Amino acid sequence: MLGQMMDQKLLISSIIDHAARYHGDTEVVSVNTDGSQTRTNYAQIQSQARKLGSALLKRGMERSDRIATIAWNNYRHLELYYGISGAGMVCHTVNPRLFPEQLIYILTHAEDKIVFFDATFIPLVDGVRSHLPHIQHWVLMEERNKELAGKHDWMEFYEDLIAEGDDGFNWPDDLKERDASSLCYTSGTTGNPKGVLYSHRSTLLHAMVSATPDVMNFSARDCLLPVVPMFHVNAWGSPYAAALAGAKMVMPGPGLDGKSLATLFNDEKVTIAAGVTTIWAGLIQYLETSGTKLPHMNRTVIGGSACPPIMIEKFRDEYGVEVLHAWGMTEMSPLGSVNNLKHKHFELPQEAINEIRLN
Amino acid sequence: MLGQMMDQKLLISSIIDHAARYHGDTEVVSVNTDGSQTRTNYAQIQSQARKLGSALLKRGMERSDRIATIAWNNYRHLELYYGISGAGMVCHTVNPRLFPEQLIYILTHAEDKIVFFDATFIPLVDGVRSHLPHIQHWVLMEERNKELAGKHDWMEFYEDLIAEGDDGFNWPDDLKERDASSLCYTSGTTGNPKGVLYSHRSTLLHAMVSATPDVMNFSARDCLLPVVPMFHVNAWGSPYAAALAGAKMVMPGPGLDGKSLATLFNDEKVTIAAGVTTIWAGLIQYLETSGTKLPHMNRTVIGGSACPPIMIEKFRDEYGVEVLHAWGMTEMSPLGSVNNLKHKHFELPQEAINEIRLN
Repeated sequence: MLGQMMDQKLLISSIIDHAARYHGDTEVVSVNTDGSQTRTNYAQIQSQARKLGSALLKRGMERSDRIATIAWNNYRHLELYYGISGAGMVCHTVNPRLFPEQLIYILTHAEDKIVFFDATFIPLVDGVRSHLPHIQHWVLMEERNKELAGKHDWMEFYEDLIAEGDDGFNWPDDLKERDASSLCYTSGTTGNPKGVLYSHRSTLLHAMVSATPDVMNFSARDCLLPVVPMFHVNAWGSPYAAALAGAKMVMPGPGLDGKSLATLFNDEKVTIAAGVTTIWAGLIQYLETSGTKLPHMNRTVIGGSACPPIMIEKFRDEYGVEVLHAWGMTEMSPLGSVNNLKHKHFELPQEAINEIRLN
Repeated sequence: MLGQMMDQKLLISSIIDHAARYHGDTEVVSVNTDGSQTRTNYAQIQSQARKLGSALLKRGMERSDRIATIAWNNYRHLELYYGISGAGMVCHTVNPRLFPEQLIYILTHAEDKIVFFDATFIPLVDGVRSHLPHIQHWVLMEERNKELAGKHDWMEFYEDLIAEGDDGFNWPDDLKERDASSLCYTSGTTGNPKGVLYSHRSTLLHAMVSATPDVMNFSARDCLLPVVPMFHVNAWGSPYAAALAGAKMVMPGPGLDGKSLATLFNDEKVTIAAGVTTIWAGLIQYLETSGTKLPHMNRTVIGGSACPPIMIEKFRDEYGVEVLHAWGMTEMSPLGSVNNLKHKHFELPQEAINEIRLN
């Protein structure tokens, strides 16, 4: 006997549709490659993602075709996340820090048909493209730029492509929740990098659980700045979980130095940031030198390597920021475990609680 | 092309298995019908639920058979929630406040095979059972009691039934996530009450989302006291969501007067309570008369009817308890909407924020 509740498929498109419907005017603030800022919101991200999906299908992309991105954390990357997967293709995020040989291996192995890239990576892309004849389109994530177009005749422009899409496009209704949605190669392996192929279902379930209080704890009162790159296991899944919760997002682009981050944190009232210890070391150094405080930020998720206890203490005692220590793997979507207290720990004296948090 | 992530079914048994594995020693404190207290935990609840499931199958219960409960919020009711659904049958919660005619209608319409009931409801059950010849077993949710056994030869005892079950029983592995798991009749309709048939999938998805910060906000640091009855749309799904988060639970049994509740809130360090305004009116009256404060409670979810602004203000200003106003329907599992602030509201002055919370 089957249950009789409404049965909605767990699709990535349903996240951005939900965010656009209930949090349409919630901002997504993005630092572009040239340092300028773009302010958009979930309603516009959804609209652009739909047009992008439509344009990709018009270009002949088929269900489950792999489409690559080599990009910073910015709003167009977010549109690609939702547009590619939403329209039924696989969003393949590529790490630009890999050796060119590995980049060629990955783009060949995945049989990508299109590569979207930020201006920073023009030299990188130009250097490898002769080895990748199967790529049909190389798309710079910018408006049309005459100078670049004249210099690089192989290059297309993101906003031109979007303009080809239909405004009234609807996500395909025959997509299944176990269909592949996204692809990320892990180098945490022997030999060549191995592709981890996510499904819509795995991404949605990960997003729902990672929004819960003991994990990322995302609410509509939050503003997330993900320092962890969108090319690295989907920025720990945070662009999905934050949109699901309707949290404001700040995309920092390429500028991850202490001053740039601290300025964004305070200007945009960021409440939570996610990143690795090396970035936070630079941040703390800037805060100490400049005497800057972080009045809005209340927590940060740290992963990638062990966070030194002294950093946890500094964040807590001097900046009022709680560190949440997380661990995971590309194959785990990626969150595997987080440290947090339980109700029974409130019986303990505060010092013992602090010890638990540090260990 | 399918994604390649681990594919786990969304089953109610996976909630209690998760709670037993990661929060095994987290307490479930239960007030029994006679006023005594039982302290158990998620590991024991899981163990008892498995034995119960095994015993039900040994008694000849088959996949999707309906098994009814007429019971307060207590730990045996929680074992039934997980044991019945976990073993593949449908946990049918029945509202004892209905007219006997409606009770007979519902138990007949659902074709229940077993009825589990608390001692409070012996007269109720004894009065209707002659109209319900299809019920195979009437089980009192207590240990064997010689006096009652002598008086009511039609009655069985819960702990006797549990003892028939196997310790090593495993949940059936052929259960599907869209299979029916639970049944609740709503009287919010014309004519006879209508049955709402939940699935494992709908229950799990509801639990995951209702644990998120903008809804119930359950963490392992919480202690939930659900005043909303487990016979009323699964106590708003909270026994699933709280176990999923590893929150401590306090089951108040039949004593819902202000003094009983306030004592439980403070003795057990309850952080969140869920219930209707009439109950909270009684609580506030007791708090004011006795001068009792609520140092541990920080929020309460209110539904069922509109909460008067004066009550929201009192909870906030005098007891430090934030009221979360929710609305839903039996057919919605049941949470439909909750009121909460967004990040953009922090631009507003505090008085305007208070106004939003009250309206």
